Amino acid sequence: MKLRVVVFGLVCCLLAAAPGRSAEVPVSDATQECLDCHESIHPGIVADWRASRHAAVTPAAALGVEGLARKVSATQVPDALAGVAVGCAECHRLRPSAHADTFEHNGHDVHLVVSPEDCRTCHAVEADQYGRNLMAHARGNLADNALYGQLQQAILGSPRIAGAAVRFEPPDADTRAEACFYCHGTELKVEGTEVRDTDAGELEFPIIAGWPNQGVGRINLDGSKGACSACHTRHAFSIQMARKPHTCMECHVGPDVPAYKVYLSSKHGNIYAAMHGGWDFQAVPWTVGRDFTAPTCAACHVSLVVNTDGVTVTARSHEMKDRLAWRIFGLIYAHPQPMSPDTSVIRNRNGQPLPTDFDGGLAEGFLISPEEQLARTASMQGTCRQCHGTAWVEGHWRRYRNTIERSNESVRVLTGMMQEAWKRGLAQGPDQQANPFDEALERRWSDAWLFYGNTVRFAAAMGGGGDYGVFADGRYQLTSALIDFEDQLRRRLAGAQATGD
Amino acid sequence: MKLRVVVFGLVCCLLAAAPGRSAEVPVSDATQECLDCHESIHPGIVADWRASRHAAVTPAAALGVEGLARKVSATQVPDALAGVAVGCAECHRLRPSAHADTFEHNGHDVHLVVSPEDCRTCHAVEADQYGRNLMAHARGNLADNALYGQLQQAILGSPRIAGAAVRFEPPDADTRAEACFYCHGTELKVEGTEVRDTDAGELEFPIIAGWPNQGVGRINLDGSKGACSACHTRHAFSIQMARKPHTCMECHVGPDVPAYKVYLSSKHGNIYAAMHGGWDFQAVPWTVGRDFTAPTCAACHVSLVVNTDGVTVTARSHEMKDRLAWRIFGLIYAHPQPMSPDTSVIRNRNGQPLPTDFDGGLAEGFLISPEEQLARTASMQGTCRQCHGTAWVEGHWRRYRNTIERSNESVRVLTGMMQEAWKRGLAQGPDQQANPFDEALERRWSDAWLFYGNTVRFAAAMGGGGDYGVFADGRYQLTSALIDFEDQLRRRLAGAQATGD
Amino acid sequence: MKLRVVVFGLVCCLLAAAPGRSAEVPVSDATQECLDCHESIHPGIVADWRASRHAAVTPAAALGVEGLARKVSATQVPDALAGVAVGCAECHRLRPSAHADTFEHNGHDVHLVVSPEDCRTCHAVEADQYGRNLMAHARGNLADNALYGQLQQAILGSPRIAGAAVRFEPPDADTRAEACFYCHGTELKVEGTEVRDTDAGELEFPIIAGWPNQGVGRINLDGSKGACSACHTRHAFSIQMARKPHTCMECHVGPDVPAYKVYLSSKHGNIYAAMHGGWDFQAVPWTVGRDFTAPTCAACHVSLVVNTDGVTVTARSHEMKDRLAWRIFGLIYAHPQPMSPDTSVIRNRNGQPLPTDFDGGLAEGFLISPEEQLARTASMQGTCRQCHGTAWVEGHWRRYRNTIERSNESVRVLTGMMQEAWKRGLAQGPDQQANPFDEALERRWSDAWLFYGNTVRFAAAMGGGGDYGVFADGRYQLTSALIDFEDQLRRRLAGAQATGD
Repeated sequence: MKLRVVVFGLVCCLLAAAPGRSAEVPVSDATQECLDCHESIHPGIVADWRASRHAAVTPAAALGVEGLARKVSATQVPDALAGVAVGCAECHRLRPSAHADTFEHNGHDVHLVVSPEDCRTCHAVEADQYGRNLMAHARGNLADNALYGQLQQAILGSPRIAGAAVRFEPPDADTRAEACFYCHGTELKVEGTEVRDTDAGELEFPIIAGWPNQGVGRINLDGSKGACSACHTRHAFSIQMARKPHTCMECHVGPDVPAYKVYLSSKHGNIYAAMHGGWDFQAVPWTVGRDFTAPTCAACHVSLVVNTDGVTVTARSHEMKDRLAWRIFGLIYAHPQPMSPDTSVIRNRNGQPLPTDFDGGLAEGFLISPEEQLARTASMQGTCRQCHGTAWVEGHWRRYRNTIERSNESVRVLTGMMQEAWKRGLAQGPDQQANPFDEALERRWSDAWLFYGNTVRFAAAMGGGGDYGVFADGRYQLTSALIDFEDQLRRRLAGAQATGD
Repeated sequence: MKLRVVVFGLVCCLLAAAPGRSAEVPVSDATQECLDCHESIHPGIVADWRASRHAAVTPAAALGVEGLARKVSATQVPDALAGVAVGCAECHRLRPSAHADTFEHNGHDVHLVVSPEDCRTCHAVEADQYGRNLMAHARGNLADNALYGQLQQAILGSPRIAGAAVRFEPPDADTRAEACFYCHGTELKVEGTEVRDTDAGELEFPIIAGWPNQGVGRINLDGSKGACSACHTRHAFSIQMARKPHTCMECHVGPDVPAYKVYLSSKHGNIYAAMHGGWDFQAVPWTVGRDFTAPTCAACHVSLVVNTDGVTVTARSHEMKDRLAWRIFGLIYAHPQPMSPDTSVIRNRNGQPLPTDFDGGLAEGFLISPEEQLARTASMQGTCRQCHGTAWVEGHWRRYRNTIERSNESVRVLTGMMQEAWKRGLAQGPDQQANPFDEALERRWSDAWLFYGNTVRFAAAMGGGGDYGVFADGRYQLTSALIDFEDQLRRRLAGAQATGD
Repeated sequence: MKLRVVVFGLVCCLLAAAPGRSAEVPVSDATQECLDCHESIHPGIVADWRASRHAAVTPAAALGVEGLARKVSATQVPDALAGVAVGCAECHRLRPSAHADTFEHNGHDVHLVVSPEDCRTCHAVEADQYGRNLMAHARGNLADNALYGQLQQAILGSPRIAGAAVRFEPPDADTRAEACFYCHGTELKVEGTEVRDTDAGELEFPIIAGWPNQGVGRINLDGSKGACSACHTRHAFSIQMARKPHTCMECHVGPDVPAYKVYLSSKHGNIYAAMHGGWDFQAVPWTVGRDFTAPTCAACHVSLVVNTDGVTVTARSHEMKDRLAWRIFGLIYAHPQPMSPDTSVIRNRNGQPLPTDFDGGLAEGFLISPEEQLARTASMQGTCRQCHGTAWVEGHWRRYRNTIERSNESVRVLTGMMQEAWKRGLAQGPDQQANPFDEALERRWSDAWLFYGNTVRFAAAMGGGGDYGVFADGRYQLTSALIDFEDQLRRRLAGAQATGD
């Protein structure tokens, strides 16, 4: 691989006349005006952009690429944009009347926050797909769910000793923006303007509540949802970065969603860590075996992957969940993926905004069917089969399915004990209209499904097992939670009887 | 280093005519037949193999290499194999009558699971060494130990509320395969055949229980033990990958065996992480200071390492434990390495299948002698001395030895309290023929030695100390377990007295 | 970036005649004598040095570099050193009468432990700055603080069952050296000499207590403090390594100071992990946007950074804390940075050696003023502004400030409960002249501020939020500690009343 990299470098060197390459792509007058000041004021931003594909290729040239190598999915691009590099002005001046943060800046109507609706100008199919992605709805799915609101309050709220208990006040906006909504996305709002004394004199800027944020479900100032820069980090917007697992890690690392940790200690992660120095992360389409020899997150969930004959293995998808049969984290039980990316509409049979009830029963009518689950599994397995035989693939998926059932079953036993504790008055829960997440027994219960049940399932899904399924927030910790809870429950019940409580 | 890489690349470019290189190595007719279909069906497998050394060199050529650079340890290779690349057919058709999964496939007797006995054809010394490795016996050492069986059941079993307690049913086969035996190795068994509708029409394949698996102690279908692909990942079987720490991480990352985490935050790991981009992971022998400037796992435990004069520092060993004086994890107390890699034969003086008794006394006659410990330590120190002076090396090892004693002592105090709890009936343990791992007090006890005592020792052994020995599952958590246990014990004893229990 | 690396390599190849490059730099006779033996005895050390800048440039040449590219800050270098490579003898024979470990070795007065006072010969400004760094005082700041001494004893001491409680004996020297003082630094002391039988016959060497150690606050044998090799690992002493985050990780990884973990899962860390293969870690000065596109630890805290116009963004600082307004870890409450790097002088209003009292009140007169905090914040923000607009920067810092207040407030509520437990006799604390860190309730309290409060603040400071602020030792765990403590406190108070305790 080392050799290929060098040879590739030499060929580029001879063919591309690299230093002058981006110079040949014309920059619009407006962008040049931006650069004239911001090259000094924000050198990091400008240098990142100069090294990017946006600086090196015009939309017209990108539209001229034939076949699977084409990166621009719009069928055409406005004339004013087609012949110049995709620079500052090309994005920050798009659709000025749509953006609440548009302001007059040195003679231009500029907005600060570029949205997926702006990116849609060239990347229409990806913008559509992403709109159907759960991630685009990540803010509302959390913020508009009353039960999650109770969890949020019990974690983010300021504690107050209230009589004989700790209770938590509603969290403040800055804490919310920095905690849950760092990933889920804040709601941006223009709250006025302010005049700042800059290197270029006094200038007026909009004041934006919720800023900064690049969460996947950010509510933008044109009303759109999401932030392409969550994965395609500004201002390089690099496909290379989005294809590497570190990008997904930013939100998928904690014990609530340990995808990155599980990946890194899986065989796939091992191959990635040891060998990726020789891979090509920029090739489009992405050829399995040639450009990479083990999948990253993107290979299974997003990228356009072809085999060495150039035949498509999986189509590009920014919907991401369209190869996922199960949702395995974030809720009490693993369950089939929801039908709509807007999960705030879901109601279980007890009327709660949850995809299952507390006994594990599914919220019928809101989740995908077993047939759809099979179809999505088959789609995902298409990627597996590029490197694994049928027996391997089927064995892996049978175990994964078994682990979903077993981990759900363990959580069901624990939830049964939790319900008994609520019934016996050892904790105050839903029946008492109380927050079910703010007492000691309740936390031992939420540990089990929020951290351990899901980790066991991630290890099964992404690693085929291993330590994250056993000793690293896995089955050991899951059974410890069960054992501790039962021990506490029994002792508290005995104590209550002894004192006549 | 950057320069060396480039120069190396250029030299290769000039000398090796790389694109045509593997084309010059003849492929057997049988392998060509495999490739004709599988190149399209499993492009990832084929591409990985094409980039491998197996595809680029014939065994005859490999046998012709003189001295320490030689990678093939067999003195001769069967004529039919010597002159062709080591391709699909060369491995998957070896010793057909020995493999229970051999089946007729397009006119060839093919087996799915290649075993160390197959690899022995060229790598005889390594196969022998690995047979003496504890890892080769990892499955039996776990599965055939009744006490470990209780631990397994308490972790992997499905929970049932039984009267006033949680009890765990024996775990199912898929859970076992995905959890403990993912690393320890499954036992493969042919359970029949099935006909599948493939791209090439209907074909019959064996059904193999325990598949997939690449655990280090896998029981193969020829009766052999182990999986070379655990570290030399199929189908590249790369020495480069095996030498990088990410490979060992796959099994040595959790809190039960935190080798990778300790390594990465040690000075050695720091040097590796910062500098390995310029190292040569493929050179054989491996020259300290020139090919690498800090050890990876392999450098200390496996690889043939020479100094810059070409003199051997340590011989290659796939036995791995032959430089290890102590076993520092997985059991209640650190203890001298077992004499036999089959640890199921060990009995302590109470007849339990453990290398120590619960008071820390050694299972005499089953563990290596102090003299052998000194010899192994001296062998390991030979590697240290390449970069460290005598005072450094001796200081390091004195502290490590002290830490083994101190951590054992802390666990002994806690185990004494555990034994008192069993005696007083506050938990049901070995004396009551009950599972000693499934109650709340018992879990606090196993946390201490399964996670914290061992982490402290790993930090001492591999890092010379640091955070994993103090705050990251280290002494802070170890003393917290002691403090909590004592607090619980005292309060439960008081409660039992108060109620006349 | 790939291209630049290759082109850079080719240019070097043509201009530098690399293999002969260091050969042109004369080596002193004394160093040559060292090399004659040690090249074989310690090939790793010698090879590392040969690849270093110290071997490739004479001090005279280094002094000749003009402007910001100059790496040697001394205005002149002794004549005897100026014209030769900085080899073994140049450092290990410096100032022989100042070093207690100087010994006669083959006709030379050699000392084993090179100190910052030796490095000062060429790097005078850095030695001065480092002397004002908290790190240089890390040993005394821990060892000379009676309250920290109690924490140390409760973590590192050997446990003894004393009546109805676990108590901890004072820890032994080897444990201390391997645990806290691995990072904080040991105190080195010559304790005699010993004769060793070496490859070169019998030789006498000093015996040094506290060796090996490379902690940041090591007390050296010339009385100086610190170890440059803590970050500039011997014997390459590479700027490249010190600029990569893995180096800082060695001490800043555990739950007590999770800087590395937070960094790696931040957007900055994501960019580093995905893109740093194409960065230049050796350029001096370090140009933002060109040499690197996201900060590492060094970029914000240490390095001389310039913009693409070559204008200084931040000056080099080995004091490190001079851009830090707050100290956010290691103590009960976050508080303004101490005025003196020697924190053993601090007394709170209750006379305790702490920067705050238990209620959170500041130790007035010992901590920097709000004005100084603003000045340091402005200095740090200068780096942020290279890639971030004003609204971004101000929003980030407003949230960080809010998180400091909120996390302090949560810890204040918990500390209030801890104080009540001490007052009610449910634990024995400062008022009873007892160790406040060795009982079950006390550990739940120290978990909260030693691990969770600080993690929340690190996530805010370095990541702008994310999982380490919520579910990974973050607010979830912080509130769990509060909830558990309150539950325990209430139940223990009820139990005490019931039994008349």
